[in-house]
This record gives sequence, C-alpha cells and structure tokens, in this order.
Amino acid sequence: MSDIPIVSIVGFSDSGKTTLLERLIPELRRRGYRVAVVKHHPHPGVETDAPGTDTWRLARAGAEQVALVTPDQVVHWKRREGEPPLSEVVAEIRGVDLILTEGFKKERFPKVEVHRNTDFPPPIGPLEEVVAIVSDRRFDLPVPQFDPDDVQGLADLIEERFLRR
Amino acid sequence: MSDIPIVSIVGFSDSGKTTLLERLIPELRRRGYRVAVVKHHPHPGVETDAPGTDTWRLARAGAEQVALVTPDQVVHWKRREGEPPLSEVVAEIRGVDLILTEGFKKERFPKVEVHRNTDFPPPIGPLEEVVAIVSDRRFDLPVPQFDPDDVQGLADLIEERFLRR
Repeated sequence: MSDIPIVSIVGFSDSGKTTLLERLIPELRRRGYRVAVVKHHPHPGVETDAPGTDTWRLARAGAEQVALVTPDQVVHWKRREGEPPLSEVVAEIRGVDLILTEGFKKERFPKVEVHRNTDFPPPIGPLEEVVAIVSDRRFDLPVPQFDPDDVQGLADLIEERFLRR
Repeated sequence: MSDIPIVSIVGFSDSGKTTLLERLIPELRRRGYRVAVVKHHPHPGVETDAPGTDTWRLARAGAEQVALVTPDQVVHWKRREGEPPLSEVVAEIRGVDLILTEGFKKERFPKVEVHRNTDFPPPIGPLEEVVAIVSDRRFDLPVPQFDPDDVQGLADLIEERFLRR
C-alpha cells in the first residue's frame, strides 16, 4: 500500500461533489500540491473516449485494454468484469501528494461529506470516518463544517491533517 | 519486466496500422486470446475524454491524474512531462495474452511493418526486428509477407511465434 494520503468526497447525487472538487483541486495546486482524483461511477457502459478516434476503434474491436502514449499524457482504458476495490486502483497512482476520491462511500477512507439538496442528515457512514461536512446548513455533530463556498477553509483542514507530515 | 509477448505494428502515417489492428484483434479474440494495445501518438494536446464529463472537468481543474472506476471499466488519465518509455507502460498491463503496439518504431520489440501509400521501401528499422511485412506489394527480403486482407495468415504467424509457448 502506498503512503499517499487518501480523502474521499462523498454525498448523495446532485450534492455538488464534482463542483467542490473543481474548486478544491486548483486551491491545493496553488499551495504546491499535486492531486489525483479517483471517481466512482456506479453504472456500466459509460463512453470514456471520443467516438471515432483510433483508441476508441481499438477498444471497439475487442481489445481488453487500450493505452495511449503521447508527449504530455498517458491514458489507459481497461475493460473489467466487476469493480476493483479502491485499494487496487490507488496502488497504481504514484507521483502525487494527495488522492481525492469522488464517491466510494463504502470504502473506509477519511471522508468529507457533502450535504446539499437532501433531507437525509449526516453522517452517511460511520462518524469516526468523517473529517468534515460541507453544507449550507449546520448540524449538531462534533465535526468541522464548511460552507460550500469556503474552499480555503476546507483546503486548510486537508492540508493540516493530511499533507503537513 | 512482465513476460507478456509484445509485437509492434509499425509503418508510416496513413499506412493502415489502425485498420489492420481493427481486423487483427477480433481474429485473435476468436482464437481465445486477450489482447491489449498501446498506441503511440507523437503530438501533445490530444483530447482523450468527452468534453463536459465529470472526469474531463476534474482534469481541467488541474488534477495530475484522474481515474474512473465503473462496474465494467477502469480508465486512468495521467498528465506527463515527456513520454515514458514503452517498457514503463507495458509494465502496468496485466491479465492479457498479448500486447500489440501501434507505432513505437524506435523501440526494440518484434515488428510487423505495414507498407502502403509510401515509396519508401522496407525495412524501416533493423531487419532482424521485423517478423512480417504487410503490403499489397512484395519485397525481396527474407521475411514473411502478407496482403493487407490476409489477417488470418498474420494471426497464424503471431500465434505460432508468440502465443503457443
């Protein structure tokens, strides 16, 4: 197991997880950290390449895996039967300071719970896994809570707890 | 170094490398082999995700790496400065019987040279690396030669030399 810290951004659908990550990543980059994100998508059949490209054609032809190597990126598509555990995916990530996940609420990594557009109260999972709650409401829980706009506050907490070691 | 056999399909641009692979992969699958393809693309800035998707947004936000995990595929995008050697990419491929590459003519793996729409004669690289030539012409070289339509003949050769071990 690598020793890159992992923090999961979890919440129900339409709670704003991707939007939060879109703001959190540049804030962490400004502070000098390199960030990887692992996103969970619960449904099969997602189109993950641009139709008509050579890599798309090779995958459609039946390749189990297609990798593309260019001067500024490497992309690796793998057909699978069944989801790998998150630990298997993060084991292949090197060269970053922090791994954020979007989703994976059942995995036991530290979590930032995003609560918007839901009446279901936090915590979603075990409270001891929750390092922060992001919401426009406040909850009676012994956990740091941030407004969705307070990306700096959340970045401060992540930096203190996971990056200054 | 993994012991999965590697065969490179090389040739000048517009020689029909992708089209050949599109026909060779299903033929090898029909014979029961699982195939991975590594494609080389010499230019930076290729769009490798569908604009507007969450993964695309996360990469644009500045993530060094984005992985997507679904019930039937795992995709891993990595930003890089400079191309990795092919050996580094193939080291991450497991669970297949054969790795075909499209391009990588300077790497020293066994090669199938595709010669169409060019006046430049084979071999492109050292003759001892060439296991076959695919062309609508014949060349005075001591190497098996196949018509572009003879995908079965090429698959026979690959099977005999690299897969029946």
